[in-house]
Amino acid sequence: MRRKEFAMNEEENNEEIESFLNEMSFGFLGTVTASGEPSMTPLNFVFVNGSIYFHGSRAGEKMTQLKANERVSFMVAKEYAIIPSYFTDPLMACPATAFFKSVRVDGCAAVVDDPIEKAAALEALMRKLQPEGGYKTIDASDPDYSPRLKGVAVVRIDADRMTGKFKFGQNLKAAEKTTITDQLAKRDLPMDAETIAMMNRYCPHARQATGD
Amino acid sequence: MRRKEFAMNEEENNEEIESFLNEMSFGFLGTVTASGEPSMTPLNFVFVNGSIYFHGSRAGEKMTQLKANERVSFMVAKEYAIIPSYFTDPLMACPATAFFKSVRVDGCAAVVDDPIEKAAALEALMRKLQPEGGYKTIDASDPDYSPRLKGVAVVRIDADRMTGKFKFGQNLKAAEKTTITDQLAKRDLPMDAETIAMMNRYCPHARQATGD
Repeated sequence: MRRKEFAMNEEENNEEIESFLNEMSFGFLGTVTASGEPSMTPLNFVFVNGSIYFHGSRAGEKMTQLKANERVSFMVAKEYAIIPSYFTDPLMACPATAFFKSVRVDGCAAVVDDPIEKAAALEALMRKLQPEGGYKTIDASDPDYSPRLKGVAVVRIDADRMTGKFKFGQNLKAAEKTTITDQLAKRDLPMDAETIAMMNRYCPHARQATGD
Repeated sequence: MRRKEFAMNEEENNEEIESFLNEMSFGFLGTVTASGEPSMTPLNFVFVNGSIYFHGSRAGEKMTQLKANERVSFMVAKEYAIIPSYFTDPLMACPATAFFKSVRVDGCAAVVDDPIEKAAALEALMRKLQPEGGYKTIDASDPDYSPRLKGVAVVRIDADRMTGKFKFGQNLKAAEKTTITDQLAKRDLPMDAETIAMMNRYCPHARQATGD
């Protein structure tokens, strides 16, 4: 049972999903081994032209697995706040929860052979992770880069489903939501102000509760 | 090809792996669906008595998948620093990398039915995520908790392999390592001092390079 109130989908929430993928520097690649077991790898990635790209060693474990089974599930997640039970219940532990964003991309991994697409993906990755520059643009026709491009594996995920779960108390009653935002404001951990902003953005009764 | 110099294993690095699992509030559960596709779920967890425990809805998607296939791969990771290419190369983008810790637990998921084990796992999860307390201890014999315990699913991962990858430049030459620690000290982002400490801890030539 995937609770609908937290769900984001590609059609309606495209911008929010993309923006989150651009913000996050690394994610987790889930694959299935030749013997049918789940496997996972953390990796840096870039989302460009509608696809996730990552790179790695041509002889690596990832590549062996992707050759055996091209189906992948890629996920990024960020925890915003642990919500302690006592924010809403003085006794029971049950209301304790966490607010977070996650995006999951399911699809097929395609090894990129075209040096121009490889260079473009790696350049996009550099611009994302090293936006301050300080390197020569990665160009497939540059003789300094072309042999290096041959030596690295670049993989594109051709997604057939991209879904998000942004959990910020959408299931709370208006009064509980206000209690939690008040307590977060009081606690004031580094991410708490941003968590309040997300609750105000995603909670369906945000307008009533904040009196806008 | 899994590079040995970054690898941590359960026998030799047990304490460091455990300490990292205790530090991280959430991880990713990789499963294989009934149709053989990879699937992933972000979740809060606790590592207690040598096992990972997590909880969820008894009717949830996770539980359906675990019933279909009990094999799981669970992973936590934390990125410490993006190392820009220009720290060691004024021209080429190739040396750009990221330093991180990751731990992966492969094994079988076992649904916990014993209310005492369920209560102990949930209490350990609360102590981890809400160490300041503020709730009544979760106890299977407590009539306030016992019906709630029946309603929640608790899963234990019986691990057959637990491995870590702590990547902090172990493959660098001593001079490059010093260049990077110097540049990190100069950059001084919030995680940079801790990254330098990790490089000094895990780089095999740390003693020579720092002159200890």
